[in-house]
Amino acid sequence: MKIRKFSFGKIVDCNSVIKDIKTENGEIPYFFNENGKLTLKFKKEDLVYGLGENVRGINKRGWIFESYCSDDPNHAQDKRSLYGAHNFLIIHGVDRSFGVLIDTPAKVKFDVGYSNNEKLYIDVEGNNYDLYIIDGDNLNDISREFRALIGESYVPPKWAFGYQQSRWSYKDEEEVRTIGDKFRDKNIPIDCIYLDIDYMERFKNFTVNREAFPNFEDMVSDMKKDGIRLIPIIDAGVKIEEGYDIYEEGVEKGYYCKDKDGKPFVAAVWPGRVHFPDFLNSEARLWFGKKYKWLVDKGIDGFWNDMNEPAIFYSEEGLKKAYEKVEESKNKNLDIYSFFALKDAFTGLSNSQADYNSFYHNMDGNIIKHNDVHNLFGHNMTRSAAEGLESIDSNKRFLLFSRASSIGMHRYGGIWTGDNTSLWEHLEMNVKMMPNLNMCGYLYTGADTGGFGGNCTEDLMKRWFQFSIFTPLFRNHSAMGTRKQEPFAFGEETEGTLKKFIEFRYGFIPYLYSEYMKASINNELMFKPLSFDYNDEISRGVEDQILLGDSLMLAPIIKQNAKGRYVYLPEDMLMVKAKSLDEINYEVMTKGHYYIEADIDEFIFFIRKDKILILGDSAKNVESIKNEELDVTVFLEDRANYMLYDDDGKSKEYIKGIYNNINIEIKNEDGDINVNCEVKGQTNVKKLNITVILKDKDNIKKCYKF
Amino acid sequence: MKIRKFSFGKIVDCNSVIKDIKTENGEIPYFFNENGKLTLKFKKEDLVYGLGENVRGINKRGWIFESYCSDDPNHAQDKRSLYGAHNFLIIHGVDRSFGVLIDTPAKVKFDVGYSNNEKLYIDVEGNNYDLYIIDGDNLNDISREFRALIGESYVPPKWAFGYQQSRWSYKDEEEVRTIGDKFRDKNIPIDCIYLDIDYMERFKNFTVNREAFPNFEDMVSDMKKDGIRLIPIIDAGVKIEEGYDIYEEGVEKGYYCKDKDGKPFVAAVWPGRVHFPDFLNSEARLWFGKKYKWLVDKGIDGFWNDMNEPAIFYSEEGLKKAYEKVEESKNKNLDIYSFFALKDAFTGLSNSQADYNSFYHNMDGNIIKHNDVHNLFGHNMTRSAAEGLESIDSNKRFLLFSRASSIGMHRYGGIWTGDNTSLWEHLEMNVKMMPNLNMCGYLYTGADTGGFGGNCTEDLMKRWFQFSIFTPLFRNHSAMGTRKQEPFAFGEETEGTLKKFIEFRYGFIPYLYSEYMKASINNELMFKPLSFDYNDEISRGVEDQILLGDSLMLAPIIKQNAKGRYVYLPEDMLMVKAKSLDEINYEVMTKGHYYIEADIDEFIFFIRKDKILILGDSAKNVESIKNEELDVTVFLEDRANYMLYDDDGKSKEYIKGIYNNINIEIKNEDGDINVNCEVKGQTNVKKLNITVILKDKDNIKKCYKF
Repeated sequence: MKIRKFSFGKIVDCNSVIKDIKTENGEIPYFFNENGKLTLKFKKEDLVYGLGENVRGINKRGWIFESYCSDDPNHAQDKRSLYGAHNFLIIHGVDRSFGVLIDTPAKVKFDVGYSNNEKLYIDVEGNNYDLYIIDGDNLNDISREFRALIGESYVPPKWAFGYQQSRWSYKDEEEVRTIGDKFRDKNIPIDCIYLDIDYMERFKNFTVNREAFPNFEDMVSDMKKDGIRLIPIIDAGVKIEEGYDIYEEGVEKGYYCKDKDGKPFVAAVWPGRVHFPDFLNSEARLWFGKKYKWLVDKGIDGFWNDMNEPAIFYSEEGLKKAYEKVEESKNKNLDIYSFFALKDAFTGLSNSQADYNSFYHNMDGNIIKHNDVHNLFGHNMTRSAAEGLESIDSNKRFLLFSRASSIGMHRYGGIWTGDNTSLWEHLEMNVKMMPNLNMCGYLYTGADTGGFGGNCTEDLMKRWFQFSIFTPLFRNHSAMGTRKQEPFAFGEETEGTLKKFIEFRYGFIPYLYSEYMKASINNELMFKPLSFDYNDEISRGVEDQILLGDSLMLAPIIKQNAKGRYVYLPEDMLMVKAKSLDEINYEVMTKGHYYIEADIDEFIFFIRKDKILILGDSAKNVESIKNEELDVTVFLEDRANYMLYDDDGKSKEYIKGIYNNINIEIKNEDGDINVNCEVKGQTNVKKLNITVILKDKDNIKKCYKF
Repeated sequence: MKIRKFSFGKIVDCNSVIKDIKTENGEIPYFFNENGKLTLKFKKEDLVYGLGENVRGINKRGWIFESYCSDDPNHAQDKRSLYGAHNFLIIHGVDRSFGVLIDTPAKVKFDVGYSNNEKLYIDVEGNNYDLYIIDGDNLNDISREFRALIGESYVPPKWAFGYQQSRWSYKDEEEVRTIGDKFRDKNIPIDCIYLDIDYMERFKNFTVNREAFPNFEDMVSDMKKDGIRLIPIIDAGVKIEEGYDIYEEGVEKGYYCKDKDGKPFVAAVWPGRVHFPDFLNSEARLWFGKKYKWLVDKGIDGFWNDMNEPAIFYSEEGLKKAYEKVEESKNKNLDIYSFFALKDAFTGLSNSQADYNSFYHNMDGNIIKHNDVHNLFGHNMTRSAAEGLESIDSNKRFLLFSRASSIGMHRYGGIWTGDNTSLWEHLEMNVKMMPNLNMCGYLYTGADTGGFGGNCTEDLMKRWFQFSIFTPLFRNHSAMGTRKQEPFAFGEETEGTLKKFIEFRYGFIPYLYSEYMKASINNELMFKPLSFDYNDEISRGVEDQILLGDSLMLAPIIKQNAKGRYVYLPEDMLMVKAKSLDEINYEVMTKGHYYIEADIDEFIFFIRKDKILILGDSAKNVESIKNEELDVTVFLEDRANYMLYDDDGKSKEYIKGIYNNINIEIKNEDGDINVNCEVKGQTNVKKLNITVILKDKDNIKKCYKF
């Protein structure tokens, strides 16, 4: 039995697992009870993976994390919660490894050796949860088992792997068109431009600010013809405004979350006062989901769902209390205690526990306080969108991702890692987060490249691009009032460099897309800690190198002013040092430790032994890439094998088996290099330009024609 | 001419330089004018050192820094100002290096390749400043020249090199005594315990809360007998309270900063409303400085000056405006703009520019708006204390350090690096800040070990101790409401480890004190970037290894869950891997790159080629250390030489030449190891146990008796 399930208390369906596992009554393996907390005694060498979107290392040991979806832009190392609630972890010991899922909608505290460095304490608020213990032969096996339990990951359209440009906000039609034109004029590839909150009329969902965007539909269509899709934001709150149809319809049909008196709950976000659709109610969820049609009909193919933790700037009740604090404070000598109490009354207005405790969901008849199911809100908003879009066009892949999430939402959409900042530390966090997000099901993900808040520097931008080349979501996004971050915002030299990096990304799409699709279909990780494939002592500790797909190891430079970095090779590998698609150097390196120089305009990664890298062409956007010829680079000792997956990139026909595979096999038979290719399905590829790189021997060029 | 001076505008004496340099009228070397800003065109390989207390790397290239003393506990990578204003930098190029001092009391913006990565822009608010350009043969020479310009660094008593324990706050006599007793019972060495704001009566300077500390004088005297000194905090603001003698005297004599109407300016800090002594007025300064006598007479030997940026929680005017904003906001639908305007009215109350623009100093007849001389305030508060203490006992060294500072204050006292947080990133920042603080004159310095804000983990505590062993100020301090941080707060195993590290520190004092005193007297750096002594390409880029004094290179582990680290050796060195004074391993390593394992309970550092490490004994406190025998470890190729400085550790007699030196010379003369020692002055040392470690040869033990 690989998966064992134990149940505690009253269970709310979290929509996380898709398999029906029988609940056991016997003893829970690995854990014991200590003061009501599920407790594990660590062994010294235990590593802890998982917990998805969180701060600190790939290995989570030594801190305390709380699953409680939080809109907190300050992603400092001492934060316990970010936007997601990802209650899955893997304990990786020397003699036993296993996975743990805490399936609950409530707040969960994971004390991973913080209070006691020898113990893991799991504390579920209210103690209602299903516990799943997942055993497996190795880390990859455990991860796969878990992912099979929670279902296949969302698959975006292929154009969503192109470069994406965003800003809060491109304020009007002219600016949006100008940004698009600049990319085209400068021949910088791009697939998407984002519309942040200001495209709406007074921040109302499914409206357009007609003053700023008088010809919205034309703009969408003109730009799509030019290969640029516009991706509008959708917020969780619906503005309270007389005459606004969605507001009125929702009230009339009773689709909003209610306060204790049964009236629609009033919170305030961007537009001021709003109601929250009750996404946990299936009728309300479908109602809201179908509203996306209004934008789909205007030619929109993708959406990002935001503010769905849900973020609350303030409630009337909270504001009232703060105002009372002011009255109380007037004409007093405010000392440290009374002054900070006054200040806190205002700084504490947003996302307050009191507010989360003051509204209710109707989960199809079951009335539940929001706080008890807080972590399901963003999940179900994105489920709402996915189900709505499915009902609009069931065979079309839409781009869809969310800020808040919980386990299971990965079946409906991706996530971006929220409102990060232009800090080197946040680039580092981006790298470390990728494997843990993958483990929790989130494959379509990435950080706001360059950082959302704060001012990005040219060097940080370059290094961040060097990493984002490899992440499925490659979006450059920045906040109002910060320095502009478009590739052309920094001057000519940097523009030239960033353009080359974007072009490299487009050339990398054959491998990236192939690995993405295989990971989704086969429940594999795209990004893995080294220890998943190498179990030596050093590999277990590496925090700044990660595996990407079948063939690659990434080792990004993430330090300011660094002109190189240390890299550990757990086996012989082929170093790839690149400045652009046309300036790539390869160097065979034997197992061991290295200091590798890489100037600000170049980046490095590694092809593993007997593994293959595929590179194609760049083009102005994904759909324009021809890729009739592909470059195949193999670091060969004995036998290398790569399965290159491709499909139409836009429909769901791949589910029915309509896709193509090129299975490339390259063998070294006593010095004779033999290439075999097998094609399944229809491919556009006509030719493979193969470079075989062998240790201590000259490279061999081969060509394979279809 | 090594130092050249140029003057612009109207000059206020900043009390920074002690040499009278003639102003030149000729062309300024290196710089040109671009839009009114002093501008330098970088060469690609230029490094920028200096700027003292600031975030980011040793090399400051790639960010923008503002000298404007700021009470901001969030030391994130995107901050431009911390507590100090340290307007000195060194441009280090391949073909030319030079130092730059901007001598001004006003805000200065250093745009070090942020707006334009090829340029340094220096922008002085008001354009009143002296510019000093310092040339020299090499980095050490430039640094020495600058330090000679600003005068010798403050020298603390020797006991200030012992371990120091702090907490905001040990709230009463019983708790203070209990903490002391615990150290003694557990045989953990300690020299100081700190008294944070709660020792005062209602936060009034030079008062004691007699409810909590009924026998303050006995407590001070009892604990001092036991070798533990108590170090009280002094704040910049004087509480407004009828009957409080210092408040009343200051008002009567007109010693406080004035508002625009000539009335004492009212700000609010811990006690609520306060006045700020006008430390820029020589009479007021001396008046306040002499108040320290009240505590000196009670047996106090040291002080820390706090809140002297000066921090302002709020002013009546600011509060009034915030209250008005509330009235304006009532009964409105607050959207993003109006809501954040309301919130900002409260979050922006503290340390506001409006407040700094609304009070005035009387600089001995010259009435100046505070904002124009803001950076001199903390400096002159500490000058006040130093001059006061000098007047109390002119031959005694007091412990004295400050939070705010500017160039020149280093002659009066040290600084600690302010209200950091329990983050790995802040340990890293601590390491990187040390050389730049030294360059700006601050030798007696260190960070709050373990972090002030936030909750420290056991592993961070251990790694931070491993670094603080080497910093002159080794103080463990933490804030109200955070996890306790005393060495015994984490359980037995960690207590044992931290005790060993503290004991190691005491054993390290002979070297540390010797290097400190020589650095002060000879205007040398104690902590240096590698590039000061090694000018190869790799050394120039190293950010996480620093040189300490004549003999050592530090390479602390500063990453969570790391079980080792990479180290670059620019020449052959001797690795020291230690768990305690009794568990030290030495290993000869040749020049190059290494990955070195070091478990959480051990740390590494390096003895340079032909250099000497001195280790002595531990004891319960510094004054109890005997050190009649010292361990001398030399990594010898040809000839090593070390001058061990010592003195009485408490008086200023060393200035008159009353100190002792042991000059140790160890020579390898064709395999014969010859030791020569010369003693100047009176030493307690009776015996040197010498271990000579040679490359590729067996170690040789020698003994030298006096």
